[in-house]
Amino acid sequence: MAVNIPPMQGLLVVPGVRLGAAYAGIKAATVGALGVPDQAASTDAPAPDTTVVLFDAGTTMAGVFTQNRFSAAPVQLCQELLGSTTVNAWLINSGNANAATGEAGKADARELQQALSEQIGGGAVMPFSTGVIGERLPVAAMRAALPACLAAATDDGWAAAARAIMTTDTVPKAVSVQGMVGQAKVTVTGMAKGSGMIRPDMATLLSYLCCDAQVPYPVLQRLCREVADASFNRLTVDGDTSTNDCFVIAATAKSTLVDDAQSPEYQQLKALLIEVATELAQRIVRDGEGATKFVTVSTEGAKSEADALAVSFTVAHSPLVKTALFASDPNWGRVCMAMGRAGVGFEQSDVAVYFDDLCVVRAGVVHEAYTEALGAAVLAQDEIKLRMVVGSGPASAEVWTSDFSYDYVRINAEYRS
Amino acid sequence: MAVNIPPMQGLLVVPGVRLGAAYAGIKAATVGALGVPDQAASTDAPAPDTTVVLFDAGTTMAGVFTQNRFSAAPVQLCQELLGSTTVNAWLINSGNANAATGEAGKADARELQQALSEQIGGGAVMPFSTGVIGERLPVAAMRAALPACLAAATDDGWAAAARAIMTTDTVPKAVSVQGMVGQAKVTVTGMAKGSGMIRPDMATLLSYLCCDAQVPYPVLQRLCREVADASFNRLTVDGDTSTNDCFVIAATAKSTLVDDAQSPEYQQLKALLIEVATELAQRIVRDGEGATKFVTVSTEGAKSEADALAVSFTVAHSPLVKTALFASDPNWGRVCMAMGRAGVGFEQSDVAVYFDDLCVVRAGVVHEAYTEALGAAVLAQDEIKLRMVVGSGPASAEVWTSDFSYDYVRINAEYRS
Repeated sequence: MAVNIPPMQGLLVVPGVRLGAAYAGIKAATVGALGVPDQAASTDAPAPDTTVVLFDAGTTMAGVFTQNRFSAAPVQLCQELLGSTTVNAWLINSGNANAATGEAGKADARELQQALSEQIGGGAVMPFSTGVIGERLPVAAMRAALPACLAAATDDGWAAAARAIMTTDTVPKAVSVQGMVGQAKVTVTGMAKGSGMIRPDMATLLSYLCCDAQVPYPVLQRLCREVADASFNRLTVDGDTSTNDCFVIAATAKSTLVDDAQSPEYQQLKALLIEVATELAQRIVRDGEGATKFVTVSTEGAKSEADALAVSFTVAHSPLVKTALFASDPNWGRVCMAMGRAGVGFEQSDVAVYFDDLCVVRAGVVHEAYTEALGAAVLAQDEIKLRMVVGSGPASAEVWTSDFSYDYVRINAEYRS
Repeated sequence: MAVNIPPMQGLLVVPGVRLGAAYAGIKAATVGALGVPDQAASTDAPAPDTTVVLFDAGTTMAGVFTQNRFSAAPVQLCQELLGSTTVNAWLINSGNANAATGEAGKADARELQQALSEQIGGGAVMPFSTGVIGERLPVAAMRAALPACLAAATDDGWAAAARAIMTTDTVPKAVSVQGMVGQAKVTVTGMAKGSGMIRPDMATLLSYLCCDAQVPYPVLQRLCREVADASFNRLTVDGDTSTNDCFVIAATAKSTLVDDAQSPEYQQLKALLIEVATELAQRIVRDGEGATKFVTVSTEGAKSEADALAVSFTVAHSPLVKTALFASDPNWGRVCMAMGRAGVGFEQSDVAVYFDDLCVVRAGVVHEAYTEALGAAVLAQDEIKLRMVVGSGPASAEVWTSDFSYDYVRINAEYRS
């Protein structure tokens, strides 16, 4: 069902980063515990579910994490490690979210942090989990898989890792770019998983960017927030924020020093990171559960960016708009309705609505040249731009979403059958 | 698809109120203009679409209206009339929302206000519309139907009116109660329509309550807000707020005087009004688009009612929770996820979740006695109580919702086929 996602290609090594994945049987251990047959067990070569990412000394890390009050145990442990200079590994598992597991869940994650740290000769480990909520991690099985992960670790392990972190993503997602930052070339490679669902789970977004610039922690953390705001914070599939969302950036200090947020180098690096993060974020939407369309929703002429975002997100979240998009129905009345309930002040007579370049609404009423046939032709595409104008203010904001299909309901309702 | 809605019965006359409905061909005129065949034209006796409600002199009116910035023309005209003592009629049409129609839409509504006023010998008319957005009202056809509406007007016209205001509601909704207010019996009869959809339209909620108490405008307006907060503001089908929502109360001054918000009479009348409004609100949810379950979502132990409402509504709006409810899947992880994203501060370790009386989550983790089979048995019912505890605060709040089914997508996506 993925909407126009290119295959992974041209993934670039980031000096100072090695990745290795192996099969620990997490899904079998977790879902098996609920009495559901393990489908992975029937395949010959079970897909890796445990990934280790190793970093050279001197690497800095930054991250932004879910605001969900039910944040998972690994999220809480990652947050504790933010700003620590000793982190030299990530441990990522799919199949079990280690969420709503209380203190026992934290102890499980700590045990695995400790086990990996011992096997790599010390340092701190950031843990990440995605999958079933409310089930304990199969610690013994995961610990037993660590040597295989380490044996597999290689600097061109990105594609394998991008596959191993998937849950019900239909395609793996990884992207690279290179560009000059100051006097040296900098490489950024990133991977993400999202829109996955394993019983009983939810869309969970994990995204990892690595670059070889040298960026001190406070600067990298600022960069991380700014990049997230321009990329992952602009997407919505169903409006449900996961307990496990993480977006982290590692900088391996092999290339240009970027230690000043006011410098041109900062802007150059930020542009590269945003390029990768935006592409990954859009691929998450394109692989959204049941998605048949990729829709860019933008608002212009707002008084503030917050207002523009509120209008864009309200329209992008509206089930009535999303079902109309699925039906290729140019239902501009629903767009006006959703704009109107965004909690943002505007005058109806200032409103314009466009489907791609087709003006549908002008001055708050249907455009005299608009016809249903013209609207339907635009909506029939699988890539649609929905553009709204709410006044003559200076601010605008764009977000990305998918439509709402039968398959969304099926994926989230009928996976037991 | 309606979930356990009893037939309309025992509707009581409210002295001072007469209702009459007739067919004006609004749907034919409106949808016909879009090139879609008029299905109503093929039936022998087309269903009435235009309703007039007439009030004896001395009646007071109060109302609360959609907050949507794209509020329809009739909503704006009703708001202008709030507090006027000259209103003696309502004119309600289904099939055309007169929304996103600009100044021309207001002029259309004013022309009909004037036409009805002339035919009833003066006074002001509150207009209400529901149906297609963005199309002009068929003014001539509606004006031509007014004499038939007036000829049909009778004090036992509630059932006919409840039918005439429907759009795609599957059943009409009207309720009566009687009770003592002070020394006299007071009658409250109300009707509502909601969850309707006519191409290209959205769920629209119109609700009308009439009582024979004597209530001055400022007191009635306060009562109206309080009753709406306890009833219609507690329901959600899909989170999309219509451009046309209205909740109005008329008091015909034939029975007890209620002129003091601190009096026992005020509380007695409020209780009767809330009883009718709550029953109508719940019937709207039960008739929600594609609904297969009626779900009561409550939050307890919150610091404030606003917090409790935020948690209840976030869970009730969550597409992941709603699809799980449709699947009878006891997916308590999704409930925790949705609670966590409500923007309300709480500790995971204080959280409990119940399906009816079954404790699923205690102290933030799954209850030791909980089993999937126990959860599934509760969720298999078509009436479910989902109860959440977030701490030991004093506040609680209950809302009502439906599940999210294939039919929701079908009704909102495929009605063209």
